[in-house]
Amino acid sequence: MFNAIVRAETLQDTLDSVGVLVDECKIHLEEGGLEIRAVDPANVGMVDLSLDSGAFESYDADGGLVGVNLVRLQDIADMADNDQLVHLELDEETRKLHISVDGLEYTLALIDPESIREEPDLPELDLSATIIVEGQDIDRAVTAADMVSDHIELGVEETAEIFYIDAEGDTDDVHLELEREDLIDLVVGPASSLFSLDYLQDMDRAIPKNAEVTMELGEEFPVKMHFDIAEGDGSVTYMLAPRIQSN
Amino acid sequence: MFNAIVRAETLQDTLDSVGVLVDECKIHLEEGGLEIRAVDPANVGMVDLSLDSGAFESYDADGGLVGVNLVRLQDIADMADNDQLVHLELDEETRKLHISVDGLEYTLALIDPESIREEPDLPELDLSATIIVEGQDIDRAVTAADMVSDHIELGVEETAEIFYIDAEGDTDDVHLELEREDLIDLVVGPASSLFSLDYLQDMDRAIPKNAEVTMELGEEFPVKMHFDIAEGDGSVTYMLAPRIQSN
Amino acid sequence: MFNAIVRAETLQDTLDSVGVLVDECKIHLEEGGLEIRAVDPANVGMVDLSLDSGAFESYDADGGLVGVNLVRLQDIADMADNDQLVHLELDEETRKLHISVDGLEYTLALIDPESIREEPDLPELDLSATIIVEGQDIDRAVTAADMVSDHIELGVEETAEIFYIDAEGDTDDVHLELEREDLIDLVVGPASSLFSLDYLQDMDRAIPKNAEVTMELGEEFPVKMHFDIAEGDGSVTYMLAPRIQSN
Repeated sequence: MFNAIVRAETLQDTLDSVGVLVDECKIHLEEGGLEIRAVDPANVGMVDLSLDSGAFESYDADGGLVGVNLVRLQDIADMADNDQLVHLELDEETRKLHISVDGLEYTLALIDPESIREEPDLPELDLSATIIVEGQDIDRAVTAADMVSDHIELGVEETAEIFYIDAEGDTDDVHLELEREDLIDLVVGPASSLFSLDYLQDMDRAIPKNAEVTMELGEEFPVKMHFDIAEGDGSVTYMLAPRIQSN
Repeated sequence: MFNAIVRAETLQDTLDSVGVLVDECKIHLEEGGLEIRAVDPANVGMVDLSLDSGAFESYDADGGLVGVNLVRLQDIADMADNDQLVHLELDEETRKLHISVDGLEYTLALIDPESIREEPDLPELDLSATIIVEGQDIDRAVTAADMVSDHIELGVEETAEIFYIDAEGDTDDVHLELEREDLIDLVVGPASSLFSLDYLQDMDRAIPKNAEVTMELGEEFPVKMHFDIAEGDGSVTYMLAPRIQSN
Repeated sequence: MFNAIVRAETLQDTLDSVGVLVDECKIHLEEGGLEIRAVDPANVGMVDLSLDSGAFESYDADGGLVGVNLVRLQDIADMADNDQLVHLELDEETRKLHISVDGLEYTLALIDPESIREEPDLPELDLSATIIVEGQDIDRAVTAADMVSDHIELGVEETAEIFYIDAEGDTDDVHLELEREDLIDLVVGPASSLFSLDYLQDMDRAIPKNAEVTMELGEEFPVKMHFDIAEGDGSVTYMLAPRIQSN
């Protein structure tokens, strides 16, 4: 059983956060809210999302699991205005999801969850540095880095208490340094890892410019990026595997 | 003789209404206003447009007929701001149309009307149901239907007093139901016909979102859609032939 | 030595004015400001630009010469908001330009000036007519002309005191006449020359719509177009060679 009403913008933000990594996903319809975990086909980027029942105008679920075509579902959600209410209702028998907005009803065939790539286990990592930074700073660095390179280094200079982003191209370089005062918070520790810019760009697209992003970093370890959606009633965690240092 | 001045927006709306179906058309320069009738190359969609002299700032004509390249004329009209005045003057001798906006004069070679597809006779149809609906409701249904199918059913449920739009795809469906209270007006009668979505999309593009569209429907009959332009000084009627029911 | 701070918008306008003609250029870092002269690969369009030190928040230079990839530099400048300050600093040893905006540092490899097309000598021309016209009038004429032709005639009717722009296509024509009262100023003289529309479109893209453009014209002579940037602290002069009259 699943029957819920949610603002279109909340649904859009939720779907976009996952849709930057995968085209299909499993959605857990838990009593307390929705839960989605997915990993991209290359096993490099993961997303762990929860959207609490409090993010909904009304919410009723008892623990089902559905598989959805995210691209299609995003198209439907994008048709609604931000403030319009979207009614979602699962038909258990036909395995279809009824989505209605202001009289318009869309019947979406679900996908057998068995046919969707298995959900990843998010590894417990002991990451030594924590940086809390505005989404727009990530966006600026990623956009600039893309002009010169296809990979990017994230790190912390412990003594100077600086978070840095570095991209080295064949001729040109991009470097962003954010001091403690430019950041929302910083816990220093040995941290420096290289990442694929493609993945970071995908994740960046889903991070609101005004979000407080909690980034956890280590030495040649994955990066975790966490931010809230739905005014705190939902949360997204991305994890991105490092590339092997090229230098 | 033809010499007229019209607001750019009125001219743009007029040309767009016809331009969604054909690239060239004949324009009758009647004493009381302009008249255009045209049918698309496949004989599926027709348009019947009139723009009364009252829609113009000044208007002088005595019954001529010209053939025009609509695409070119739309490009010229689109260069002007909505509120700018467009001066149209026919040079009978050279068979050219002089179009001037704020000092800029465009000389458009006309097309021999004989070389343009013959104007259609709009059949008198006795359509049993009449629905008056906002342009934006048509737009929503057509946009959603396009995600799942290439055809669309329009119909009326007589006892429930409901106007519905249905699109059935291979896996997903779209359904819009509008009750009497969601409509501007409704006259029920047996009505259900299937249409090509391509044509309805073209017509939808020319229907203002805030227009009151009078739709006449029958059982496997063409649909007629009528709306005003130029603040009531002009009117557009589309007629679209049905597809054979696939079920 | 070169070390300067400038508003992003001023830098963008400067680079765009040159970038419509060439992809690389030499920049003279004079004590009094920047100077750029460039000619397009076909030797048809030239630009002469100066940006005085007064256009900068701070400016320090002693006469160096650098070669830059304009496309890359435009991309960097475009990342900043109009009002953000851009810090430019030349590293003489590495021959790299450090560009920083709000903590983000971009290191741009310079190009050997010897490898860039030689700067043109701007010929002294005795052009008989001078027209001062708004940028938006040039824009309208060029946009309309592009619908019908690939060349455009600029001229002055001396007795009528009219500046005209003419484009003749195979079937359609475009004509713009601006009388003395439609112009900011007019000095009549024998003037009528034909130009490639491609080049004029490129230059038009860089001319602000609200700029006062001083145009100097002769009989089958190049046209000079002059306008200010940076609120008068910078100036751009385009010169465009005429095409041979086709009629």
